[in-house]
Amino acid sequence: MNNHYSHILRVKNIGIDTYRENIIYMRADCHICQSEGFTALTRIVVHFKEKSVIATLNVVHSELLSHDQAGLSMEAMKRLGVEEGDYLSFSHLKHLHSLGYVRAKMFHKELSEQDFNEIIADIVAGRYSNIELAAFISACSGSSLSLKEITGLTKAMIATGQKIEWNHEMILDKHCVGGLPGNRTTPIVVSIVAAAGLIIPKTSSRAITSPAGTADTMETMAPVNLGLDEIKQVVEKENGCIVWGGAVKLSPADDILISVEKSLDVDSEGQMVASVLSKKIAAGSTHVIIDIPVGETAKVRSQEEALKLQYYFKAVGEAIGLHVEIIITDGKQPVGKGIGPSLEAMDVLAVLQNVPGCPKDLKERAVQLAGALLELSGKYPKGSGNKEALSILETGKAWEKFQAICQKQGGFKKPQYANYKHDVLSEKEGIVRAIDNRKLARVAKLAGAPKSPSAGILFLAPLGKKVTKGQVLYVIYAEAEGELEYAIDFMKSNNNIISIE
Amino acid sequence: MNNHYSHILRVKNIGIDTYRENIIYMRADCHICQSEGFTALTRIVVHFKEKSVIATLNVVHSELLSHDQAGLSMEAMKRLGVEEGDYLSFSHLKHLHSLGYVRAKMFHKELSEQDFNEIIADIVAGRYSNIELAAFISACSGSSLSLKEITGLTKAMIATGQKIEWNHEMILDKHCVGGLPGNRTTPIVVSIVAAAGLIIPKTSSRAITSPAGTADTMETMAPVNLGLDEIKQVVEKENGCIVWGGAVKLSPADDILISVEKSLDVDSEGQMVASVLSKKIAAGSTHVIIDIPVGETAKVRSQEEALKLQYYFKAVGEAIGLHVEIIITDGKQPVGKGIGPSLEAMDVLAVLQNVPGCPKDLKERAVQLAGALLELSGKYPKGSGNKEALSILETGKAWEKFQAICQKQGGFKKPQYANYKHDVLSEKEGIVRAIDNRKLARVAKLAGAPKSPSAGILFLAPLGKKVTKGQVLYVIYAEAEGELEYAIDFMKSNNNIISIE
Repeated sequence: MNNHYSHILRVKNIGIDTYRENIIYMRADCHICQSEGFTALTRIVVHFKEKSVIATLNVVHSELLSHDQAGLSMEAMKRLGVEEGDYLSFSHLKHLHSLGYVRAKMFHKELSEQDFNEIIADIVAGRYSNIELAAFISACSGSSLSLKEITGLTKAMIATGQKIEWNHEMILDKHCVGGLPGNRTTPIVVSIVAAAGLIIPKTSSRAITSPAGTADTMETMAPVNLGLDEIKQVVEKENGCIVWGGAVKLSPADDILISVEKSLDVDSEGQMVASVLSKKIAAGSTHVIIDIPVGETAKVRSQEEALKLQYYFKAVGEAIGLHVEIIITDGKQPVGKGIGPSLEAMDVLAVLQNVPGCPKDLKERAVQLAGALLELSGKYPKGSGNKEALSILETGKAWEKFQAICQKQGGFKKPQYANYKHDVLSEKEGIVRAIDNRKLARVAKLAGAPKSPSAGILFLAPLGKKVTKGQVLYVIYAEAEGELEYAIDFMKSNNNIISIE
Repeated sequence: MNNHYSHILRVKNIGIDTYRENIIYMRADCHICQSEGFTALTRIVVHFKEKSVIATLNVVHSELLSHDQAGLSMEAMKRLGVEEGDYLSFSHLKHLHSLGYVRAKMFHKELSEQDFNEIIADIVAGRYSNIELAAFISACSGSSLSLKEITGLTKAMIATGQKIEWNHEMILDKHCVGGLPGNRTTPIVVSIVAAAGLIIPKTSSRAITSPAGTADTMETMAPVNLGLDEIKQVVEKENGCIVWGGAVKLSPADDILISVEKSLDVDSEGQMVASVLSKKIAAGSTHVIIDIPVGETAKVRSQEEALKLQYYFKAVGEAIGLHVEIIITDGKQPVGKGIGPSLEAMDVLAVLQNVPGCPKDLKERAVQLAGALLELSGKYPKGSGNKEALSILETGKAWEKFQAICQKQGGFKKPQYANYKHDVLSEKEGIVRAIDNRKLARVAKLAGAPKSPSAGILFLAPLGKKVTKGQVLYVIYAEAEGELEYAIDFMKSNNNIISIE
């Protein structure tokens, strides 16, 4: 990165976890700060043997460190592979070239594929501070990226990750553009499609801004942090899997970006398309169905937005050699009853086990998506997919397949209810006319989902339902009392979550 | 902020300086992290008596803290007013409402004055993490803000700062939109205008992305960190001052935003207008001249951009009751010989002292701006300003005034040369045809300016100058050997800084 090394300091393991960010701690009065003029927030290159990281300086004015010591955040220690007592050397950070492109994007210039390659390579190497990551995400948000740019970003993300090779010509996959609480079709779809003899190795993400991602939900029923070899074994045996994508570093850039997106609570168009499709290519998929739920309080709010996303998904898919089909679905209200990892898993199990009274909407959506995949494979004629999928589900073959997949992933377990709960009652008699999915999701998140897997909401008041005064509209579950209280606080100060007329 | 308090921890003063950001350090296995499910990067409300701050959690996995202790970054300790041993309580962060507007802006929605008020109030109260600040800055960059929004942002910034009241009807002021190395007219202009009996209390900023701000330069000659009462005393006695604006918290929001802009190396249109004009209003100014240098490698690159800025400055000025005049000047090359605080101060002194061979360009620019201010005051007829300003300068009245101002600010001192220097020689004979101001500024910054006040560049090769092979084009000065080497590295890998034909 640069050739000027200054003197050295010894590592003290101070055990500070800053999540992804590389932080270096030095005494204000150590010889390096003094001679090099380093002050708080200076970006410094830290060298250990052949390795180096860029870290942000936090200056220490206490006896936490001695004059010849430096501390590193845990992430930085891991990246450098250092232990207490190792010797570090330091140099000034040379201008990070790719940040010029981030600034250009902030000023609304169009970036090339090469520009994105450079940015993404630096991000994956841990060279961006959180401030710089936030600027990049913000500059790419809204409709800031052109089709060409989204394609470039997607390719750049593919280039930095692993790609899984399969011994099959056709690899099926599905994805849902989130925003609809409880819409947990994946475990059902994978079970049906795999039971039909098609290959569907599903890698899912954890929640970005929602109360649960598919990986979070699946994790309440079986291990999902599988390595590449383990995934292959599951799929070779069972045709399908439902695992967390991050564990196999399919798109390491995306994992870093998502950590900052999460803290900003945004999930923008271009990055969404790049994130989804780069992971599909990395997973080795060839044919993908994407479900876009549309509703006023879903992630995608209008048919127009959905069609725009459809255009991007299909166009970028074509540019990177992926066959993409889009299904636009109704996103007016939560799907099933559960919102939050464990509670959603209970819905999934009810559908798979054909329990009487299982959530009909979840079942119908899963059958529609599975049917579309069966047809896309060419193995089932157009128009026959849904019927076939329903039959696989209702004959118990899907449930059998699901159990086999869980077993192979490390063993099935039953999702649990949380210890703390609170019933939210209707204040009047009437009919449920509108549901604010965003606020409902926020209540579930404040209650601890997805961090606390059994936290969330059991939702009992779908659109059109007649309710009486005092009837339970939904139950809030939490693992910690503080979180339950906090969700209740929010619920109480937002009385328009469910509109009853 | 919210009513749910959980248990308490004792403060341990671990003395970590994170600059502006509030960080809370807690043991992963302390009862609060465990019961509340706090993990790294969680945003937490920290309470002490009547006060509270929002802080980002860094989780400690070492004996740095005991189970009943928590650490705070120095900024957070100051904000809360806590000392070692004080008891803190904690609560979950309620959704920060104004972040919804930041997200809306990221998605290109237009914000209202009220929206900006809420955002800026939260920023000033220290409620934004660096990630959130970066997202806000990025979302407002380029041409993202409408005139209405820039006005709203300006008013919001005014609302959160102090406003200085003067016993004078007319308060003059000047500002230069940076980007032109060495363009340090302010101390000269203030001295001339104050000597003419007009009131010009000049509050200046430190460098954002340049090698020196006026406050940095002035600080090499006299103290600039004056409080409000001290500033008033200087101005009542001498009609003018040249002080750092940040010390009197004229625009606390701007100071926080600038710290993040600096680390992103951006300085965007809307924020520039809001930053400049809010500080003018806060300083009590009524009549302001703004100098916009235009050049290919200056901050403003084209006449078109300059006219757009002129429009915003005048229109926002009108909306907030400020009389603004714009002077668009030539920004093709550095002004004077010095680039960096001390070296620029030497040029300023040469002009004020009428030293033969003093930088003619700096003198002419200062006289033009001072003349425009004299005319704007109405005390001197149109067309007579420049002549009058020149006479005040050349008769030594301006130098006398400057010394008096320095004396009143705490005492005059002479700027010094740095210990390390390197001559950059011409590799061929020819005429200087082009100068890359940005790269030249970068060399000065890498050499340590403005952090190291005597670091920078002595520039000896203006446009049109005939040079021989081996002639000194410029001298790099640095206070630390490492910084000098680093500036030389950059200079060597960029051979197009000065084009000779």
